[in-house]
Amino acid sequence: MTQYWSSTFTLGILGGGQLGKMLLDETARLDIRTSVLDPSAEAPARGRTETFQRGNLMDYETVLAFGREVDMITCEIEHINIDALAQLEKEGKIVRPSPGIFRTVGNKSLQKAFYRDHDIPTLPFFSFENKREMLDRLEGLPAVWKAATGGYDGRGVAVLRTQADLDQVPDMPGLIETYMEDKREISILIARSPSGQLAAFPAVEMVFHPTANLVEHLHSPTSLPAEVATRAREIAESVAKAFDLAGIMAVEMFVTPDNRIYVNEVAPRPHNSGHHTIESHLTSQHEQHLRAILDLPLGSPRALFPAVMLNVLGGPESGKPRYEGLTEILREEGVYPHIYGKAETRPFRKMGHITVIGATLEEALAKAEKVKQRLVVTAG
Amino acid sequence: MTQYWSSTFTLGILGGGQLGKMLLDETARLDIRTSVLDPSAEAPARGRTETFQRGNLMDYETVLAFGREVDMITCEIEHINIDALAQLEKEGKIVRPSPGIFRTVGNKSLQKAFYRDHDIPTLPFFSFENKREMLDRLEGLPAVWKAATGGYDGRGVAVLRTQADLDQVPDMPGLIETYMEDKREISILIARSPSGQLAAFPAVEMVFHPTANLVEHLHSPTSLPAEVATRAREIAESVAKAFDLAGIMAVEMFVTPDNRIYVNEVAPRPHNSGHHTIESHLTSQHEQHLRAILDLPLGSPRALFPAVMLNVLGGPESGKPRYEGLTEILREEGVYPHIYGKAETRPFRKMGHITVIGATLEEALAKAEKVKQRLVVTAG
Repeated sequence: MTQYWSSTFTLGILGGGQLGKMLLDETARLDIRTSVLDPSAEAPARGRTETFQRGNLMDYETVLAFGREVDMITCEIEHINIDALAQLEKEGKIVRPSPGIFRTVGNKSLQKAFYRDHDIPTLPFFSFENKREMLDRLEGLPAVWKAATGGYDGRGVAVLRTQADLDQVPDMPGLIETYMEDKREISILIARSPSGQLAAFPAVEMVFHPTANLVEHLHSPTSLPAEVATRAREIAESVAKAFDLAGIMAVEMFVTPDNRIYVNEVAPRPHNSGHHTIESHLTSQHEQHLRAILDLPLGSPRALFPAVMLNVLGGPESGKPRYEGLTEILREEGVYPHIYGKAETRPFRKMGHITVIGATLEEALAKAEKVKQRLVVTAG
Repeated sequence: MTQYWSSTFTLGILGGGQLGKMLLDETARLDIRTSVLDPSAEAPARGRTETFQRGNLMDYETVLAFGREVDMITCEIEHINIDALAQLEKEGKIVRPSPGIFRTVGNKSLQKAFYRDHDIPTLPFFSFENKREMLDRLEGLPAVWKAATGGYDGRGVAVLRTQADLDQVPDMPGLIETYMEDKREISILIARSPSGQLAAFPAVEMVFHPTANLVEHLHSPTSLPAEVATRAREIAESVAKAFDLAGIMAVEMFVTPDNRIYVNEVAPRPHNSGHHTIESHLTSQHEQHLRAILDLPLGSPRALFPAVMLNVLGGPESGKPRYEGLTEILREEGVYPHIYGKAETRPFRKMGHITVIGATLEEALAKAEKVKQRLVVTAG
């Protein structure tokens, strides 16, 4: 068996953002050598890995060359050159999760078709190639429009309610999904190892920013009835199996007021909705991802405490970030700021996150509210 | 106020061993820029810091030049050039803890005299300049001999029971301390900020390796009666105040069968006896050290779970390390291996540690025993 620790085995990580940075805490703890590829000289993961290489993650030759020099490849982002990964896999390199998952997930129409074809519950939808086709097939408003590709952090998704909304839809391939009123959004981080071991973290509930379409905070546990939580976990498991996943995956789901569950979308990597696991669970999502891709025994996904995770979003100004109020919030017990180290703040950019734990969820939520009011990202 | 996060403020760390590596997890989380000085090209902290500089920590010019390039200096090891730190302080550089502490602590005779002069309970002793003087003043056996300088991890300390033991004592400055039968050894990690805030972690009990004079495991909580634990904390506080500490310090103490407490020695930095805080306390010792030297509000030292910490020591062979059984122990819930990444194993070398948490101390101890039996460091 490969001796991963304190050896020449090198894990290549595509992407050096905050997720890569946090994954590197776990590779460091187990002394697993890493190499990171990222386009930015100021990537958060820089200075936290044995080797850092600057390069375009979408460029075939760059990704191919990077992958050939490492022993295994994983990703912290989906916007990568999938053809290069497929070629590396063909050459015998281990790529986890497999490139096929990224191909399916990277196109929302393919992703929705995948759920339909695998009997995974998802909201009714139709795909189209252009706006003309969309308008022809649209049966009424409101409806949800999604771009097939290019969406991220709220871009590429819109609720269409009026003719004005329709007018703004760009002419590009996409899908229309049934609009569901009063739904809740939950996420389950699920890990699966090449040996087939499965471990699902408890579901978290995501509360969105009213305008930015970004998660403003999430909390764990959710208020789902036990049988609904169990069903959500079973759905997440079936998704992981359908994808033949090796690694961790966030399965985002809608829960209707009458507790029907629909898979919204997945991210085949550690995810914003799993940040709280670092402090509030026996195993963090990053450790779990690492265990999964290396085919080590999966860690216990058990929760230790109720937790709230707040994204620290850039304020209205752009420029060199200042974190006002951070010293103040360090006075609170059980408050864990993670500052990603991005060189520039921009409106709504994810600059960091804060995990708040409490003896009860109410206590954690109250503390998180105080924290939210105090911490402001300015530029200057 | 200085904006430490995402700024050009640079914390210089003398020493890049495992303690430095773990401290870098916390600077990374808060995005505080670091520069590390260590003699080894393969230091565990390498690849985890913005800047890594190879150099001799005992060399005046090296430490001086390193210190002049950073904004604040701290240490993860005591074997450093103290004159250079004193010079840097004279030049207006912030050095925390202050060089004077290292001067006192670095010489066991000075350290013992410090306790005596500050009414801090410590076992009776006398200091001497050479072996002749020691033999003249020795009033009987058994007694404990300690070298004034150069002791570390069991070297430079001996229990003298027989003439043969006496014969082996080298001719060098040192001290003789009363030998105490059946004592227990505890440690309290205590942090103090320049503003004077104090925070003591709960005491841990240290169980030593029968021959190597190294901590084999420690557990928290101790079995000390509550009033003894309180007295130990008060003593640790008085030590931190007497030293005018800025940072964290391990205060190692003896507890006699009739619950008298004596300070044995201190380490003015994060310490082996605080490793378990990473997983089992609200704040880790490394985060606490960072908060203390930056004069941020100290974190809560509250324990969350009973914990056992096992040192992973090198086996009888020397060479490239192999960690046999590590995959197996990852099957256990609440078991956290930390592999330091040292390039070479040697007998009794600290190669890593494992923290084991449990719902009860008994559960954690039982799990730790299993772990200890499974994990072996070999060379090859």
